[in-house]
Amino acid sequence: MEGPSSGGERRVSELVTPAFVVDRSLVAANCAKILAACTELGLTLRAQTKTHKTIEGAVLQTGGSRRGLVTSTLQEAEFYAEHGFDDILYGFPFIPHHMPRVAQLTKRLEKFHVMIDSQVAVDTLAANDPPPGKQWSALLAINCGNNREGVWWEAGEAEALAWQLYKTPSVTFAGVYVHCGNSYKAVQSGDVEGVRDQTIERLLAVVDRIKGRGVACPGIGVGSTPTCSRPGPSMKQLTELHPGNYIFYDAQQVSLGSCRQEDVACCVATRVIGHHPDRNQLLIDCGFTGLTKQGMGQLPSGCCIFRGHPNLKLDNMTQEIGFVDAVEGRLDFEQYPIGCMLFLLPWHSCATAAMYPEYQVVEGDVVVDVWRPTRGW
Amino acid sequence: MEGPSSGGERRVSELVTPAFVVDRSLVAANCAKILAACTELGLTLRAQTKTHKTIEGAVLQTGGSRRGLVTSTLQEAEFYAEHGFDDILYGFPFIPHHMPRVAQLTKRLEKFHVMIDSQVAVDTLAANDPPPGKQWSALLAINCGNNREGVWWEAGEAEALAWQLYKTPSVTFAGVYVHCGNSYKAVQSGDVEGVRDQTIERLLAVVDRIKGRGVACPGIGVGSTPTCSRPGPSMKQLTELHPGNYIFYDAQQVSLGSCRQEDVACCVATRVIGHHPDRNQLLIDCGFTGLTKQGMGQLPSGCCIFRGHPNLKLDNMTQEIGFVDAVEGRLDFEQYPIGCMLFLLPWHSCATAAMYPEYQVVEGDVVVDVWRPTRGW
Repeated sequence: MEGPSSGGERRVSELVTPAFVVDRSLVAANCAKILAACTELGLTLRAQTKTHKTIEGAVLQTGGSRRGLVTSTLQEAEFYAEHGFDDILYGFPFIPHHMPRVAQLTKRLEKFHVMIDSQVAVDTLAANDPPPGKQWSALLAINCGNNREGVWWEAGEAEALAWQLYKTPSVTFAGVYVHCGNSYKAVQSGDVEGVRDQTIERLLAVVDRIKGRGVACPGIGVGSTPTCSRPGPSMKQLTELHPGNYIFYDAQQVSLGSCRQEDVACCVATRVIGHHPDRNQLLIDCGFTGLTKQGMGQLPSGCCIFRGHPNLKLDNMTQEIGFVDAVEGRLDFEQYPIGCMLFLLPWHSCATAAMYPEYQVVEGDVVVDVWRPTRGW
Repeated sequence: MEGPSSGGERRVSELVTPAFVVDRSLVAANCAKILAACTELGLTLRAQTKTHKTIEGAVLQTGGSRRGLVTSTLQEAEFYAEHGFDDILYGFPFIPHHMPRVAQLTKRLEKFHVMIDSQVAVDTLAANDPPPGKQWSALLAINCGNNREGVWWEAGEAEALAWQLYKTPSVTFAGVYVHCGNSYKAVQSGDVEGVRDQTIERLLAVVDRIKGRGVACPGIGVGSTPTCSRPGPSMKQLTELHPGNYIFYDAQQVSLGSCRQEDVACCVATRVIGHHPDRNQLLIDCGFTGLTKQGMGQLPSGCCIFRGHPNLKLDNMTQEIGFVDAVEGRLDFEQYPIGCMLFLLPWHSCATAAMYPEYQVVEGDVVVDVWRPTRGW
């Protein structure tokens, strides 16, 4: 029931709700802006696809070249490979279990890269022959303070693993990679630039140590939407940026100052389904399967922004129902008749998009396309 | 890459992770137990399908009859109608926008019911002709303390709406319905039986008032897995039960005393992807897209139970990565080599199942089937 109608123009007001609505012009503008920033800095953009997982989105992210992606799952890498994309990094710690699919992707693509942060991963690459005429291509993941994957930047393990990758004949050591997700914690400190510059400084110290071992380090990449939305001169020392969320942005990025509210290119369309004046509450047909509970308690308006209705607050959700209270005072129930549509800017668009088998792509109030993301792993 | 292999037996140890794993024997046992409880009480089971949204699960829930379901979305109702199910209640507040699809389902099925809790909904039914030879069938939703949908049990609106439905020639008034989701709040009080009996007492008071207006009230239904997992004599005054989560159960239901941990029929299979002894932490390939963040802070072990590993705690997640700490002391990293599999019992199985396009159905450590849920609205 969610596909495009067989004939005639579909309006946003006709959508089955909840619906994930994507503004094509805003997506195009967000993609163009980051591409332009990279060009200005003399860097390559390797766009992260995890936020949207669609062909159409990745075409816009790559400026039509279909070259230079980083994915969060092997499923995404395979999906893009099947659709003519190349130069793809599987931006997730490589483990032995990935080997057969990594071999297929290495065989199929001109450039496919894995991300390494353990001895087990290095040993696995070294112990397996790449497809004929190919080499494995490996980036070393560095932890510059985000404390997720990666070798701690001060640890000698970094240059030791780089050296091993470099000296293994079947492996191309492609460089170093860091995701500075700790920039998200700067919602509190406000110092995203500080995280950006500290990350780059630490990463360049690792690169120096690696080069000190006689190992060439062609790629030096950093990613996160908050930092990449604030391009600065320190970035000129890098070769690549890897942001992803910027394609849609979201309420979290507005809070972080990465974008303006009017740059947020996605929203959830929902309808009022109940009036409960006794508890000063509206119900809407968007529960946690339509938005996720991410961001709860982060905003005066709950875990989303009600576009054009700053006094509404999404206080809680069950699976299919959201509870809408007033930020202050009484709700004007006549303003929100049962059936009327509201539009929610999600706290975390990556999480919200992941709940939808289809995105309704709009220009103004007309649905002009349907994008179908890949799912699964 | 997630479909069943083209040949040969698949083992759990071979699964792409994260994977949603369903134990078929446990699902069958959970379904049989609730069916037996209903038979013993002389009640009909109208199984809620929102937890799993699969054909196979609903066949087990209905004991093979394919009769008597309540769904959380119209998409589910249509999916089951297409697969030979009948007597389906769309257990969600009816609004005018639903009318065309409700008309199709009313036409197609022998018995299709909507749930009403507003004057707008009553007026919409009354203003639209049902398909030839059919009547609309409507249940009135009552709020007995859960404070979500439904007319407050003490409000005269209940009998007023029932009377209007009853007197409308094109409508069959099918009875009253209440979801006692407030039983979940009894995690704190421990008094699920108290919520159960209070809900029934309040609902019967409404039924008495409706009957006092000369309106027959054939159906009296109550649902929620915590209460239905504790069948009691007060339930004999009802006609139907509508639980749903019991098909899988989950860590939340274990906390509520609805089931034992060994009754939980689903889990997420995940692999260790990183060792970080400097912060006494393992990383796993299950992030919020593989589990959801529901239940964070609810258990000493985080928002899941690590089957067989009570000292592990899932402390946080990003999109594809989970951070595993020790509940106390140092982690024994040799016990958890990179690549080894762990099994997580989710806090809320409805939320976790909703993240997967496929369920891997197992008997012991063999994958015997793949169930594909419906998604969307």
